[in-house]
Amino acid sequence: MPVHHAMRHAVTGGKRLRGFLVIEGARICDGPDATHAAAAIEALHAYSLVHDDLPAMDDDDLRRGQPTVHVRWDEATAILAGDALQTLAFELLARPKAHPDPAIRAALVLSLARAAGQEGMVMGQALDIAAESAAHPLGLSEIEALQAGKTGALIEWSGRAGAVLAGADPAPLGAYARALGLAFQIADDVLDVEGSAEATGKAVGKDAGAGKATFVSLLGLDGAKSRAATLVEEACDALSPYGARADALRDCAAYVIARQS
Amino acid sequence: MPVHHAMRHAVTGGKRLRGFLVIEGARICDGPDATHAAAAIEALHAYSLVHDDLPAMDDDDLRRGQPTVHVRWDEATAILAGDALQTLAFELLARPKAHPDPAIRAALVLSLARAAGQEGMVMGQALDIAAESAAHPLGLSEIEALQAGKTGALIEWSGRAGAVLAGADPAPLGAYARALGLAFQIADDVLDVEGSAEATGKAVGKDAGAGKATFVSLLGLDGAKSRAATLVEEACDALSPYGARADALRDCAAYVIARQS
Repeated sequence: MPVHHAMRHAVTGGKRLRGFLVIEGARICDGPDATHAAAAIEALHAYSLVHDDLPAMDDDDLRRGQPTVHVRWDEATAILAGDALQTLAFELLARPKAHPDPAIRAALVLSLARAAGQEGMVMGQALDIAAESAAHPLGLSEIEALQAGKTGALIEWSGRAGAVLAGADPAPLGAYARALGLAFQIADDVLDVEGSAEATGKAVGKDAGAGKATFVSLLGLDGAKSRAATLVEEACDALSPYGARADALRDCAAYVIARQS
Repeated sequence: MPVHHAMRHAVTGGKRLRGFLVIEGARICDGPDATHAAAAIEALHAYSLVHDDLPAMDDDDLRRGQPTVHVRWDEATAILAGDALQTLAFELLARPKAHPDPAIRAALVLSLARAAGQEGMVMGQALDIAAESAAHPLGLSEIEALQAGKTGALIEWSGRAGAVLAGADPAPLGAYARALGLAFQIADDVLDVEGSAEATGKAVGKDAGAGKATFVSLLGLDGAKSRAATLVEEACDALSPYGARADALRDCAAYVIARQS
């Protein structure tokens, strides 16, 4: 069945940043196995990429170094594969193996739905599309609001989820992931200017070509890099309660602005 | 924000059969308020219609007597509104107001995800699309498998959900809804031949025009009506444990094959 192949294609490759945050957060909070929650956020993220790449949305041909789903198969398969990946995310979180306590499972379903829905990720994507036909490019606060929805909400969820699985306070890891997510997006804008399609596995130079406001167009290349570096420091500061146990998350924060892809 | 308006548009009108089944099932099992679960299944059903109507899928302009979402707004808005309606369905089920016991909430999320996903509704839609380019029209058992996924899985979930909310055995209401769902789809095929766009609120004659196999093309008009009537009897038989309390569900079964829209 093409939809199954397309789903597998869509979850193959990528950095798996969100799944890493879930698993590492659970580990440093002495939580249980977090594989189901990590797989859930990766499935949800993959759904958003498949739909975002569609011709009616960003119309991208290349993702993670491979043809996008609608290019490899067709639009109907891409719509259905994205739909089924979203469904799969909630199925994974609701399975008893995700956590023995159903209250934790229901809480994670609820928080993921809020992060992904019309007040979170979908709102960010809708703002992004509306910006393309807006009379004026967005300002900095508007770009930050857009990114807080489009990528920030899921990354923050990923940071908090490990602590939630462990029954620990999710606030420090949430603050870490919130700063990390914004730094990640600024670094993406920098890569769109400085990176190559070979290294990033997706088209570059699209935003500047489309005249879209980005962190680079608003802050300049140096200003954007400086802002990202400050956010990475903030992210690392939020990890202080965990001491050396959080070193992998500190490395992850440094990687987010040093990466070439 | 257009996405919010489009979501509201998509959940307006319709028969609300699935929500009715949830609420009525909960009532006859002496269950708690079932509004959240009923709203969840209607949101999920609405998402499936919005995406199914897209140009890359069934390419329909009319739904519930109104322009479809991509006609009224655009394709990007329809993709995002459908996505957000699916998310909203899981959010509604996971809210504490859906049921005081988180185990019940997690169980309903899990069963809905299984009914909606790549082994349920999405599989049915993918089979439906594949049938359009198949060398031969589908046979009866293939059409039944397709419909069991495309519409049957969600209708059966709707039948079972009320009993699950009530902590009762969901098997009788599940059997009722399974038979009802198939009768409903056969009646849809009959309406596609005998109905009018004014009464049904959607395009008619599409399946015959496209040379698609339907229950009518396989069984004939009288054969299809007879099969639907038999299924309605089976559905009503499954309600015998509930006595007169289930009369509204019996009326609903009779309505499914008598309806003009």
